[in-house]
Amino acid sequence: MKFICTQSNLKKAIFYTERIVSRQTTLPILNNILINAGKGGVKLSATNLEMGVDTKIGAKVEKEGKITVPVRLLSSFINNLPAGENTQLELINQSLKIKSGSVKAVIKGVSADDFPLIPKKSEEYQIILKNSQLKEIIDKILVSVAINEARPELTGINFILNEEEIILASTDSFRLTEIKIKLEKGNIQKEAYRSLKNKKSNVIIPATTITELNRIITSQEDGEVKITIEESQIFFEINGTTIVSRLINGKYPEYQHILPQQFKSRAVGSRDLILGSVKMASIFASGKTNEIIFKISSDAPKMIIEAKSAEVGENTSELKLDITGPAQEVVLNSRYILDGLNVINTSSVAILMNNEATPIALKEINEKNGEVLNNYIYIVMPIKN
Amino acid sequence: MKFICTQSNLKKAIFYTERIVSRQTTLPILNNILINAGKGGVKLSATNLEMGVDTKIGAKVEKEGKITVPVRLLSSFINNLPAGENTQLELINQSLKIKSGSVKAVIKGVSADDFPLIPKKSEEYQIILKNSQLKEIIDKILVSVAINEARPELTGINFILNEEEIILASTDSFRLTEIKIKLEKGNIQKEAYRSLKNKKSNVIIPATTITELNRIITSQEDGEVKITIEESQIFFEINGTTIVSRLINGKYPEYQHILPQQFKSRAVGSRDLILGSVKMASIFASGKTNEIIFKISSDAPKMIIEAKSAEVGENTSELKLDITGPAQEVVLNSRYILDGLNVINTSSVAILMNNEATPIALKEINEKNGEVLNNYIYIVMPIKN
Repeated sequence: MKFICTQSNLKKAIFYTERIVSRQTTLPILNNILINAGKGGVKLSATNLEMGVDTKIGAKVEKEGKITVPVRLLSSFINNLPAGENTQLELINQSLKIKSGSVKAVIKGVSADDFPLIPKKSEEYQIILKNSQLKEIIDKILVSVAINEARPELTGINFILNEEEIILASTDSFRLTEIKIKLEKGNIQKEAYRSLKNKKSNVIIPATTITELNRIITSQEDGEVKITIEESQIFFEINGTTIVSRLINGKYPEYQHILPQQFKSRAVGSRDLILGSVKMASIFASGKTNEIIFKISSDAPKMIIEAKSAEVGENTSELKLDITGPAQEVVLNSRYILDGLNVINTSSVAILMNNEATPIALKEINEKNGEVLNNYIYIVMPIKN
Repeated sequence: MKFICTQSNLKKAIFYTERIVSRQTTLPILNNILINAGKGGVKLSATNLEMGVDTKIGAKVEKEGKITVPVRLLSSFINNLPAGENTQLELINQSLKIKSGSVKAVIKGVSADDFPLIPKKSEEYQIILKNSQLKEIIDKILVSVAINEARPELTGINFILNEEEIILASTDSFRLTEIKIKLEKGNIQKEAYRSLKNKKSNVIIPATTITELNRIITSQEDGEVKITIEESQIFFEINGTTIVSRLINGKYPEYQHILPQQFKSRAVGSRDLILGSVKMASIFASGKTNEIIFKISSDAPKMIIEAKSAEVGENTSELKLDITGPAQEVVLNSRYILDGLNVINTSSVAILMNNEATPIALKEINEKNGEVLNNYIYIVMPIKN
């Protein structure tokens, strides 16, 4: 193996692959990255057996071959190489010899024969989404994923495809997020949809895979992601880089019946103002469930956020918001409300309530016409006393 | 107690005091901040018994009085208060009642009677240094302070005052920093110096105190620090805020004899280039002492930085630097070299050597005339094989 490429191309390719490499593993070769110089160019690959990443580097291949080397080591070295110089990588006696300007290094490698195979996709259809579309929803959908692995299906994101839209959902059973992406021409071809529908149109994607996808797309200006779903795995292709991940087995809970169809009371106002008030209240929130109270007053139209703790003290904020509907009083976990408000991207937010025993909802507000947007909903279960 | 001030003034005063409050303590009142409204205005105070901070707030006092409240709680609350509103603080039944716009809070307090006294200074003279002078040296002097408390005097910074200059030094016995600040008119008055000389002109200041001083001065645009040294404590006054700290007992080692008076060989070049090469070498550095080799070649004038590890591989960088003097080869701990290069502020650095058994030195280079600057020296002991 022998090839020449720029330090910046190499650095970018390592950035895309290195994070999924596990730090502690019973299989030491999984600490390594596979460098494969073939006829079609050079490819770097990494895997943690749950998820794999392949990425292409623009390079001039002089001799084909492959080797694996420790990724953290390679990454620290390449990141500190002076930029701008061409970098030559060569395999000599199971070691990777690197030359760049007046810098030389030899990194001991491990044979590529022992490196696990990263699955290739066998289907041809794709769902195409813009990076910008995904950037806007990923933080939102990750908020309510369960950390606890007692119910593995809740550690993933429910992905449902139908003829009009993609529906994403996540819940840890205390709060739930649902996001709808309307499919437009160009997102998916009709025949592809039919092909997909016959197989898998309701799957669970591990949250860790979505986090990794997010890291790669947020490092890129724009572009698009091509998604292909197969029997037990999902592929994301982003401009020369492919992430392949297993899907989570199991059936995602049918959450639709707990989503309120309508709300009696609504308070609309500045997201920053409400966020600041909830932060203050959270300091005085009591108990393990961080109890705070959301009150909507209907006579003097205002919202009141309150908290009281026997040890610490108490706090009340009165907010002049745009109120409709009857008075309400709901006890909530301040942490869940903060999580939701933190990922809202519009300057105004709608808080929607029915009564003290049913979920409250947060929705975004259209910046132009002030109307409630319905493509995103975040609901939080109340604390019942 | 009752007074009115702005949220921003209160926030700033809390910022100056809160960090020294210890998080775990056998004396719970030390988690609190003292709020004292007197005839002269409002003062916040905090102490961890080693170090205390007093700071004044611009406020309109309506009723004198004092109380202590948990500082983290107060800080989180005030930081989230909407800016711009006047904030009223009032003592009612051992609780602090805060009102700001439509936000109200009650924070349970503890009587100020149990709060430790923060020492007042009894001397009048001062050494005056500009914030900008201090900002430039603090990172440098902290680098070589000992972490290990086996020798308490090495966990501090040696401060020596003589008629011409202040000399600061720190060492953990593996490397040593010495910085000289030339005294100019305005830094200290003659009679003050004489008064000081008769008492304490060679003291040891805890590194933690200097870290705290740094935090306060880096939050300010410019200004000056007034320093007063007494028998067992030191005072720093910065624009309405006073830090008082104990001095470390003991005698600082007489390090002057290990500072080489001259160096035979010198390599001068880009600090960033050398830093990058040392970072690369450090990846391949071997053993617990992170061994790398600095070589100066005299025939082809260049510097070579090398490292080799049996497990990992090897690395060599050849640097075209400005070399004078005979060839050298010294084994060094890469971590210590990195620490030194990281705090160098000039674009070029001088590496100075005598032989493989004596310390090497780093110095800064005057940006204008390219000459070696002598007010700062960082020396690193070689590793002897």
